[in-house]
Amino acid sequence: MDALLPVANVLGRLLSIFSFAYLMPIAAAIYYNDGTTADFVAAMVISLLGGLTLYFTTRANYRELKPRDGFLLVSSVWVLMASIATIPLLLVYDTMSFTDAFFETISGLTTTGATVMTNLDHAPPAINLWRHELNWLGGMGIIVLAVAVLPMLGVGGMQLYKAETPGPMKDAKLTARIADTAKALWLVYVGFTIACTLLLQQAGLSWLDAICHTFAAMSLGGFSTRDASVGAFDNPQVEFILIVFMMIAAMNFATHFLAIRGRDLRTYWRDMEVRGVIGLIVASCFGVALYVWLEGTYEDYPTALRHVSFNLVSIGLSSGFVSQDYEKWPVFAPLWMMFLANITCSSGSTGGGIKMIRTLILAKQANRELTRLVHPAIVNPVKVGGSPIPNNVVIAVLGFIFLYFMSVVMLTFLLILSGLDFISALGAVVGSITNAGPGLGVVGPSSNYAGLTDFQTWVCSFTMLLGRLEVLSLAVVFTPQFWRK
Amino acid sequence: MDALLPVANVLGRLLSIFSFAYLMPIAAAIYYNDGTTADFVAAMVISLLGGLTLYFTTRANYRELKPRDGFLLVSSVWVLMASIATIPLLLVYDTMSFTDAFFETISGLTTTGATVMTNLDHAPPAINLWRHELNWLGGMGIIVLAVAVLPMLGVGGMQLYKAETPGPMKDAKLTARIADTAKALWLVYVGFTIACTLLLQQAGLSWLDAICHTFAAMSLGGFSTRDASVGAFDNPQVEFILIVFMMIAAMNFATHFLAIRGRDLRTYWRDMEVRGVIGLIVASCFGVALYVWLEGTYEDYPTALRHVSFNLVSIGLSSGFVSQDYEKWPVFAPLWMMFLANITCSSGSTGGGIKMIRTLILAKQANRELTRLVHPAIVNPVKVGGSPIPNNVVIAVLGFIFLYFMSVVMLTFLLILSGLDFISALGAVVGSITNAGPGLGVVGPSSNYAGLTDFQTWVCSFTMLLGRLEVLSLAVVFTPQFWRK
Ligand SMILES: [K+]
Ligand SMILES: [K+]
Repeated sequence: MDALLPVANVLGRLLSIFSFAYLMPIAAAIYYNDGTTADFVAAMVISLLGGLTLYFTTRANYRELKPRDGFLLVSSVWVLMASIATIPLLLVYDTMSFTDAFFETISGLTTTGATVMTNLDHAPPAINLWRHELNWLGGMGIIVLAVAVLPMLGVGGMQLYKAETPGPMKDAKLTARIADTAKALWLVYVGFTIACTLLLQQAGLSWLDAICHTFAAMSLGGFSTRDASVGAFDNPQVEFILIVFMMIAAMNFATHFLAIRGRDLRTYWRDMEVRGVIGLIVASCFGVALYVWLEGTYEDYPTALRHVSFNLVSIGLSSGFVSQDYEKWPVFAPLWMMFLANITCSSGSTGGGIKMIRTLILAKQANRELTRLVHPAIVNPVKVGGSPIPNNVVIAVLGFIFLYFMSVVMLTFLLILSGLDFISALGAVVGSITNAGPGLGVVGPSSNYAGLTDFQTWVCSFTMLLGRLEVLSLAVVFTPQFWRK
Repeated sequence: MDALLPVANVLGRLLSIFSFAYLMPIAAAIYYNDGTTADFVAAMVISLLGGLTLYFTTRANYRELKPRDGFLLVSSVWVLMASIATIPLLLVYDTMSFTDAFFETISGLTTTGATVMTNLDHAPPAINLWRHELNWLGGMGIIVLAVAVLPMLGVGGMQLYKAETPGPMKDAKLTARIADTAKALWLVYVGFTIACTLLLQQAGLSWLDAICHTFAAMSLGGFSTRDASVGAFDNPQVEFILIVFMMIAAMNFATHFLAIRGRDLRTYWRDMEVRGVIGLIVASCFGVALYVWLEGTYEDYPTALRHVSFNLVSIGLSSGFVSQDYEKWPVFAPLWMMFLANITCSSGSTGGGIKMIRTLILAKQANRELTRLVHPAIVNPVKVGGSPIPNNVVIAVLGFIFLYFMSVVMLTFLLILSGLDFISALGAVVGSITNAGPGLGVVGPSSNYAGLTDFQTWVCSFTMLLGRLEVLSLAVVFTPQFWRK
């Protein structure tokens, strides 16, 4: 219990702060007079009271958190916030089950953006804004998680970044350090959010749609206010703006911070992850567009390039907006897009998957292994940015990848056992664990996750969280070692 | 060229010896008077002359092989033998293409046992015996490769076994060491082969069928003399005998050697791989049988257990015999069987996949990583048999697994690009790289690889060899580092 109570105290504080997030949908509910004002106010009051109660009853137990408490905190904070965030959904939709509501909110907060809701086009504006705000807040959470928390906890080789966090917080205490990092990077996040909103509104979207889709783009969350997602607008300018901001969101926010502070665009080029993301995405766009065009899906190459670029960037960067039913393309295309979602996004971005830095370390490690076979005596450590990576970091990275892909295999088997077909099961697991959103088959781009059974829905909810917390941080909480004195 | 010629000299010697393998089908052709005698004699003469020519023209270049030459030797020996072994097929079947003939022989020699031939039940007995003998000889080659060559070359962490090879060959020269190991283990292999043949004949098979299926079982090759594979006999006793000998073949032959020499059955129990193989297979058989029975595929549990046991052992141990169209079972079952093929067989066995020792190291490594997260300061090296494994071996194992699964992903994408559907492409790649044989879909258990295009056939031939040579040994030959001075 001496581990639980201090964590509960922090959770209480975070929940109290979180309750202010309801102000935005409350404002929308009043402005649009969509009849949900009372529901959102009730939800806000419950959250605030719950948070304050938790905070004050555990106040005596407060102490500075240790790294080990961090695992419990990050695992429980997402679950708690998602549970509380279901309140307005349950109040507004009488027939919605807690299973579905929790799926929707955890999908929002993990920036997965998979949905079980239909008829979004006619949902109350406040409800849509709330869903998108969850995306956006989730993105904030992830930036802090990735840039400040996971490196300190040493998850999957991310201790690499321990010394690289920007700002003056080296050797600072855990909570102070997180707060300082958060402030610096959130400023960047908010700045891009404002820019994207203005541009989307200029391109023809309503303010509500502009705000909602900006929230979903910057967090790489991928919720939409339309059942047909971004395809509903059929607006190339909107698609182009979203592509640009999704690319921005898929880069390390610490890199953005350094580039902006130093007013030096070359900062981006020096980030090997940025080079990796851009190279892989641009090559894939042109290549897949050529392939899809040659296979006759679209009349001309420019049209193919437009549609492939938007959907490939969106899925490959784990955003999950859709503008075409890309499952009707030759099957190589959607599978490649799903594969990219696993490996492309930068660490410190709002994207999911194993992250570009680990992809690059893996590629270098494979090359090193081949060289070592030819020259057994050679000393050729894997290097990142010029400095060699210690063996234990390489092992941590490889071990992480292994756990990640084993999770994909085992969870796919679990969904198959529950009655789903192979393609849909694999698609649901990859869509969830990468936090991309859309999968394949019954959970594919032309459909959503509403067709799943309750059990399958919970498996997907768990998988989203597993992916978001980089597998290890969640898995460790289920080990006996963790709970042993 | 100073690397090529000494290797060519050894290849010439091996090819000359290999030509004597034709004596068996020649004897069968004469005994059954099946009209193929002249074809096999011609093939034997061509092999012998080719081998002797190669040997004598490069005799001046002979020198003791270095470990690095080993990669070139193991990559080229399979290709050369398979090419030469096509001769009788091409002579007997006028319409057979070299593509198909090479697929059949490389499939035999890599002990994959996938086939492009139909109407096997009415093929000349000498042809069937030749196919099965290729399985058996391939099995011999793999035992030596796994127990003597790969550990020395340090492929994928197998330097672990460097000091553990049985017999007096430590620090001996490369060729002498291989020869000594080979003799000891081949004796074991031949002994089991004789025992299995006698038992199968007692169980009701003809001598030809008994010999052929023994060859295929001991090598985990999985060729059959029937289009319907072992299902054609519908004989539970035959199935039981084959299960026992497939389990034997899936263990390390060095362990068999030690157990027999020491007359101590506990030797098996001390081998952690044996425990792993038996545990995983037995648990899977009972579990999958229960599942298949509950789903209503078979009337009663004993029948389900019989059919699941045979097909699961066969596919899970990468043998590839089939007695039922298991693709009609609920999809979890065939997928699980295909998954087992990747991870189950022991090192030093005739089976394929990543090998049980690497599976166990992976599992321990994952557990270690989780422990390290809770206790960052702990020193808990991965141990095998009580002694800690050096970090560089763990890295080599993890790197190998990564290359293996990346190969699966990339080759599946390649087959999809060539027009195959996703399930069939994945099935063909997994069936080939694990050397199991049957895949899924158009290359599934009720069908064979005859439906593939020439390009797809070559991709599968390459994949079989890639799996058989543990990916790295083949991949390294394609790197620029290898050919640089
Ligand atoms: K997403
Ligand atoms: K096989």
